[in-house]
Amino acid sequence: MEIEELLRLPIVGAPMAGGPTTPELAASVSAAGGLGFLAAGYKTTDAVEHELARTRELTGEPFGVNLFFPFRDDAQDEAIERYIESLREEEDRYGVATGEPLWRDDEWESKLGLIARERPSVVSFTFGCPEREIVHCLQELGILVWTTVTSPAEAELALAADVDALVLQGAEAGGHQGAFTQHDDDPLPLLVLVQLVAPMTNRPLIAAGGIATAAAVRAVRVAGARLAQIGSALMLTPEAGTSEPHRAAFRQAGPTRLTRAFSGKRARGIVNRFMQEHDPDAPIGYPQIHYVTAPLRAAARERGDAGGINLWAGQRYSLAIEAEAGELVERWAEEAGND
Amino acid sequence: MEIEELLRLPIVGAPMAGGPTTPELAASVSAAGGLGFLAAGYKTTDAVEHELARTRELTGEPFGVNLFFPFRDDAQDEAIERYIESLREEEDRYGVATGEPLWRDDEWESKLGLIARERPSVVSFTFGCPEREIVHCLQELGILVWTTVTSPAEAELALAADVDALVLQGAEAGGHQGAFTQHDDDPLPLLVLVQLVAPMTNRPLIAAGGIATAAAVRAVRVAGARLAQIGSALMLTPEAGTSEPHRAAFRQAGPTRLTRAFSGKRARGIVNRFMQEHDPDAPIGYPQIHYVTAPLRAAARERGDAGGINLWAGQRYSLAIEAEAGELVERWAEEAGND
Repeated sequence: MEIEELLRLPIVGAPMAGGPTTPELAASVSAAGGLGFLAAGYKTTDAVEHELARTRELTGEPFGVNLFFPFRDDAQDEAIERYIESLREEEDRYGVATGEPLWRDDEWESKLGLIARERPSVVSFTFGCPEREIVHCLQELGILVWTTVTSPAEAELALAADVDALVLQGAEAGGHQGAFTQHDDDPLPLLVLVQLVAPMTNRPLIAAGGIATAAAVRAVRVAGARLAQIGSALMLTPEAGTSEPHRAAFRQAGPTRLTRAFSGKRARGIVNRFMQEHDPDAPIGYPQIHYVTAPLRAAARERGDAGGINLWAGQRYSLAIEAEAGELVERWAEEAGND
Repeated sequence: MEIEELLRLPIVGAPMAGGPTTPELAASVSAAGGLGFLAAGYKTTDAVEHELARTRELTGEPFGVNLFFPFRDDAQDEAIERYIESLREEEDRYGVATGEPLWRDDEWESKLGLIARERPSVVSFTFGCPEREIVHCLQELGILVWTTVTSPAEAELALAADVDALVLQGAEAGGHQGAFTQHDDDPLPLLVLVQLVAPMTNRPLIAAGGIATAAAVRAVRVAGARLAQIGSALMLTPEAGTSEPHRAAFRQAGPTRLTRAFSGKRARGIVNRFMQEHDPDAPIGYPQIHYVTAPLRAAARERGDAGGINLWAGQRYSLAIEAEAGELVERWAEEAGND
């Protein structure tokens, strides 16, 4: 299947794990002519199966599913323990204990099995790329395989694994940087990444990060990308599962920053109290730190306390629009011109 | 004068203070149909006057001059002293003493006087924007006034001062970030900045940072910028004054990062020994730290030791081309389409 058969409009709805992505959001994007995505990360395989079924109830159009590729950091147990110690006052504040710093593979094998059984139109991977044999196996089932990359070196690895398309994630993007390994280098902004990767391949490129206007959709396509993937700009839509305090933070202007404070891997969010207090101490250690802070974040969310939540947001989040997702997709595509 | 009368091709040659920009480079860009710039920063007024004269010998086409706007940081003398102490081993290594941590205004008044006398077609400012009265005074002399901005807030200040155009400098850009004040927020990448500022004004926007291909020139123009300003991609041209060790570093691939280690203000350069060893200790303090490290950098440059030099470079520097500047300007504009 060619990418053009999947969608009429050159807009992909970004998979946003941890709440914002819902079957309703994915279906709304796909029904409008874009390509919606489900975010399988952090969920159980059963939950993802239900989301697939629900999305298919809502739309007959193609959609994709995003999986976290499991990887192991060079995490230092002592550093993680020290970080947990430094969170004691957060435990007091929210009246809950930190979680266990467990490494988990996010049910990789069983989710891959689900994908093979359910055969969504596209599966995209984040945090790494499966072996060529797995990619081929999925492709033989009629599933297009995309991988998220953040550098030319990662693009080379993904192309060597024979994926159908690359999602180029720029530094602007909200949430986790999909880098295959942890590093402290400045992430490459989208336009830089597109310029560097476009000469490497004829496979379709999907540009992601900081895109939230028709002008930007056109710009990344002119630069060499086939499709524009939009995340933050969909987070205030009624279809999104964005929490109330997260929505409230979106309505104020404020800087974003990359931090390991919430999950042990660099992710971009709106600067808030938790980030400011704990970013300097946060070690490498994903997903261990994610599980450590999860109970604190859940408690903060329940209280409506935006100071304690991971407020993932891309750098252009401030102009996110409160309208239905399908309407936004149509508007962006129409204004951008679909040539 | 309208911006279109200045140049046939939508390409501006970035002013690159500290060596790379020369009258030959500026003249070559202008002669090809773009708009070349001289970089007055760090130079004496006399030296700038000579550069203006030399450029006019080389071309009859319009060109611009960039001035550093003087500003005072909240620099802590003690922090600067501690940093100087931490550079003792660099003094031993290079056999020279660090410079005096002086605040200077870069001969602001006399350079402004020179501009008023010599009337280049454009004067652009970096690190801030003069008062509205000064802007008007320059405009009445027939000089177009541009200001470099890195955020919507700075754009608002510059528009309030009634400048003719805004140079939008993205996070990708090499050398100093032109921010009006020092901060540690993530700088906004170019496409984000264009999306945020374009709705604020009808004045021309010049996009700067990480642009080095015809596709990127087209992309930023599609996004809303009138002109593309190109810096790093001109640094390997024969007309540029880029030092030999700096050129050698450009020919290797390597990450860039923002650092205060060389000058006391965030600037993007290729990661090297000096940056890695001193970035963590570097305080806010521009231009004091610039003058402190200047003798060390000069000595390293003389030795051809790229490990001790400020290797300013944008994030797309790795594909800089070794060809004449005028030829590059024509090539980019032709491939980008000049509509």
